[in-house]
Amino acid sequence: MNNIISLDALSGILTCQAGCILGNLNDHVSQHNLIMPLDLGAKGSCHIGGNLATNAGGIRLLRYGSLHGSVLGLEAVLANGEILDCMSTLRKDNTGYDLKQLFIGSEGALGIITKAAILCPQKSNTVNLAFLGLDSFNDVLDVFRDSKKHLSEILSAFEFLDSESLKVCTSNLQLASPIAQHPFYILIETSGSNGTHDEEKLTQFLETLMTVGKVKDGTVAVDDKQMQHIWGLRERVAEALLHDGYCYKYDVSLPLHDFYNLVLDMRSRVGHKATRVVGYGHVGDGNLHLNITSPSYDEEVASLIEPFVYDWIAERRGSISAEHGLGFKKRHYIYHSKSRSAVAAMKAIKHLFDPNGILNPYKTLPDD
Amino acid sequence: MNNIISLDALSGILTCQAGCILGNLNDHVSQHNLIMPLDLGAKGSCHIGGNLATNAGGIRLLRYGSLHGSVLGLEAVLANGEILDCMSTLRKDNTGYDLKQLFIGSEGALGIITKAAILCPQKSNTVNLAFLGLDSFNDVLDVFRDSKKHLSEILSAFEFLDSESLKVCTSNLQLASPIAQHPFYILIETSGSNGTHDEEKLTQFLETLMTVGKVKDGTVAVDDKQMQHIWGLRERVAEALLHDGYCYKYDVSLPLHDFYNLVLDMRSRVGHKATRVVGYGHVGDGNLHLNITSPSYDEEVASLIEPFVYDWIAERRGSISAEHGLGFKKRHYIYHSKSRSAVAAMKAIKHLFDPNGILNPYKTLPDD
Repeated sequence: MNNIISLDALSGILTCQAGCILGNLNDHVSQHNLIMPLDLGAKGSCHIGGNLATNAGGIRLLRYGSLHGSVLGLEAVLANGEILDCMSTLRKDNTGYDLKQLFIGSEGALGIITKAAILCPQKSNTVNLAFLGLDSFNDVLDVFRDSKKHLSEILSAFEFLDSESLKVCTSNLQLASPIAQHPFYILIETSGSNGTHDEEKLTQFLETLMTVGKVKDGTVAVDDKQMQHIWGLRERVAEALLHDGYCYKYDVSLPLHDFYNLVLDMRSRVGHKATRVVGYGHVGDGNLHLNITSPSYDEEVASLIEPFVYDWIAERRGSISAEHGLGFKKRHYIYHSKSRSAVAAMKAIKHLFDPNGILNPYKTLPDD
Repeated sequence: MNNIISLDALSGILTCQAGCILGNLNDHVSQHNLIMPLDLGAKGSCHIGGNLATNAGGIRLLRYGSLHGSVLGLEAVLANGEILDCMSTLRKDNTGYDLKQLFIGSEGALGIITKAAILCPQKSNTVNLAFLGLDSFNDVLDVFRDSKKHLSEILSAFEFLDSESLKVCTSNLQLASPIAQHPFYILIETSGSNGTHDEEKLTQFLETLMTVGKVKDGTVAVDDKQMQHIWGLRERVAEALLHDGYCYKYDVSLPLHDFYNLVLDMRSRVGHKATRVVGYGHVGDGNLHLNITSPSYDEEVASLIEPFVYDWIAERRGSISAEHGLGFKKRHYIYHSKSRSAVAAMKAIKHLFDPNGILNPYKTLPDD
């Protein structure tokens, strides 16, 4: 189950078994000047079949889009033991319904993915990373707007941390910040084919931001080591939070104009009952990580958070789970993000594919 | 049914009713520095709902991917009159199965699309177009490989015509070719945020191609008028062919190493019984337009073409319909591109959503 089946280097189409580890696939395709269209912190251990079943997002989604666009084919074993063969290796194929899409993000409830065909983008020759300090979340959004305009086709990541998120890295993990303290920080990554052009675009853009005062302080990584250090400040927030004791985690989507208000509202709601409330994540994808910590699991804190957080998100038409599915903990909140008609259709499809409910039972869908 | 509902210019998310005309939507979003993620010759008259129902591809697919990636939400009216609300406007939402995907490309057979939310990419500041002459289809593939490497993030179209395709434009439509005659022609379009950078990349790339002899002759459009003229040579082939009398049209996907052989094999098969056999299309997407003409519809020519063309494609695991669905003419050839297990699952889903078969009957799926 962990074999690479083929790679068409010219069209960038990889076929592999579901048990391949994402990082190994990336190593393989990078020999042919390609990259996997998704990248996660867990790449060293996560399986591509699991990535597909959970519709994993990660930091490359801003540039390369979701797996619904980059998965071209798929094979799954159904509940009755039959093999459903949708292993197309073509970018365009309009011969019937696109069944494979149902399996992407359905948490293994409709079938077990066994093979996939994936479109791999071209590897970039050059990558740059800037770490910037800003005064307000409005400035974060302004800089995002401007970066889409000025960096456009070379923009490959736009991530943010609030000051509390950075502080947990510096205090709990003793990581050094490359710049002085600010209310907000952003990471802007560019990837492109020409180093001189990309540096020119990025430098010019950063100079403009500093001149107009949208950015107060910043640094551009000078080598791989510094780049890894800066990425560590963003990627290790979750790990750093665990040093506080217990962490209540929410990975949600929100329209950008409401994005950071959830952190502010939650902070004032839980007050001193929590150790801290932090917000960080993929601004470019509208995907916020809201994390709250306390010395140990605390029923009172938990009851302040839920169902408040889900109600807050539903009122703004956000998603209560941007990246990790609903599992069994969140399935009864599905109506906070999905309509009654959609859940009814999901149940009918689940019954069609798995009438005895043997595949990943008690997950995703609520009880009748 | 033709109202634009909202546009979030910051995140690039448009919501609209299904009866909006693609070109009108593009005009609307372009005021906010965005473009629609798809572009077709029929943009002046085609409806976005129809684009979604047929999973339209077009010339921007190479750069911005398929509608399965860029459609974020959708509303459809089901066969029983119920409204299925999947109108998410979020880039990431993993709360249950991605039902909307079933409606993209299902030719209206599962429900009638009434609304959509679509992610619109940033508009490019600068566009360049080169028209090049080459000696062989192998050279076309080599230049495609190199263009992915050297133009990478600014490459927005890679189209080809064989000499017969260009000839039909010059002889039937009296369009002038900007370069001398060659066995193959390619159009390379770049789109980016910085004109100087893009021109430098393109010029350097073309100089290298000329030096190593991969490209024999070529021109870069100097203004919009010339750009439109060159695009006309590619987009008006289908119109030009109609002047021959009757045109047998095939819009198929093939692995790139087999791509042009279908044209050669068809040409030797039909011989002088056809007026001409031409090949052109979206090399970057593995999507070939194979067109054959005769003075009027000819049973003998038709019987030489079908089922030969479908068998040829099936043997190479291509798709007998890259862009236009199966309709009622091709539905009995579905097994040439889809497995028995996939067609069985499609039939079960069709029965689930439309038990009385009232939505677009006799289309897509074969009789039992």
